[in-house]
Amino acid sequence: MFEKIASSRSAGRPAAVQRRGVERRRAILDAAEALLAEQGYGGATLKAISERTGIPTASVYHYFSDRHQVDAELLQRHVDALDALVAAALEGPGLRTLREATDATIDPILDHFRRHPSCVVLWFARGEALVALVRGFDACQAERLQHVLIARQLLRADTPQLALQLAWEVGNRLFEVAFRHSPTGDPATLDEARRLVTAYLETYAA
Amino acid sequence: MFEKIASSRSAGRPAAVQRRGVERRRAILDAAEALLAEQGYGGATLKAISERTGIPTASVYHYFSDRHQVDAELLQRHVDALDALVAAALEGPGLRTLREATDATIDPILDHFRRHPSCVVLWFARGEALVALVRGFDACQAERLQHVLIARQLLRADTPQLALQLAWEVGNRLFEVAFRHSPTGDPATLDEARRLVTAYLETYAA
Repeated sequence: MFEKIASSRSAGRPAAVQRRGVERRRAILDAAEALLAEQGYGGATLKAISERTGIPTASVYHYFSDRHQVDAELLQRHVDALDALVAAALEGPGLRTLREATDATIDPILDHFRRHPSCVVLWFARGEALVALVRGFDACQAERLQHVLIARQLLRADTPQLALQLAWEVGNRLFEVAFRHSPTGDPATLDEARRLVTAYLETYAA
Repeated sequence: MFEKIASSRSAGRPAAVQRRGVERRRAILDAAEALLAEQGYGGATLKAISERTGIPTASVYHYFSDRHQVDAELLQRHVDALDALVAAALEGPGLRTLREATDATIDPILDHFRRHPSCVVLWFARGEALVALVRGFDACQAERLQHVLIARQLLRADTPQLALQLAWEVGNRLFEVAFRHSPTGDPATLDEARRLVTAYLETYAA
């Protein structure tokens, strides 16, 4: 997405101007990420981004029409990263039990959330566009999990898609509870999340 | 709460005025409930209530300073009703298994939600005051469930409060999913909710 926007705007412009545009866009996104991590959702306004980067507000608006566009681009990056992490975790050779599969899914997400506080803020923000992004991610992962766990004969072949969707939904909610209680995710709540998702999936064990 | 507010405002007033006040308050709350059920959260504004009841807006404001006060009073009534229903269900003689206990808890809530669409709208509305009300209810029920299920020797005596809190939280979220998909609660999702909560609680079975 980043490349596409940059190139569509740069037709016919000198290389130096193009490069400055790419650098400014990156600076804006980096500043937004830092502000989200430091000050929470309310802190990452375009005005605050302008102050932090020294890029005039009018120029910030040249790259992003509003803060929701900044939020969505940042969250999309996290979603892409998480998608790759979960895919890698599930495609590995291990996973002999449903508990191992649950852990293999939860661990990389938890690790990413802990290393990127801005991702946590955006993930649980209530904006409609962001909610749609998270829901889309959830739906994809539930489908992947269904295929992988049935292929590995951990779940029965007739396990409904709905079961995986709800397991994912519930895991997501328990992450929210865990991160509401602690910036690094309350460990006791996360332990219960693993236990709960595993116990539910075991009712469909092959 | 209703009686308390009515009496604090009626000191020294003639009986007919007091009675009219009581009737108007009731008419406002009834109209709000009907508007929520028919038109969703956005429909139950004080202006719409005024139009529906024929009570001038200025008079509506005499009883309620804003719509959030109307919402909170309606939701409080539902919370009180649900509390009594769950208490009655758990204090009955049955409940030989954790699945029966899960059903005994879910059934009266589901029945109440289905008979009161306005309750569903308020329950899942995102207003801060309403969220706090629902969270308070959730915390009470989780505590009750812990005591009852341990006393009946269905759960181990050392089952942590957190497990019941999270079971309740997750049940609440799955209700939300079920009612998002259908105005009477998607039956397949509700079946999975029973299965999931039971499977989780069984990991703490006595």
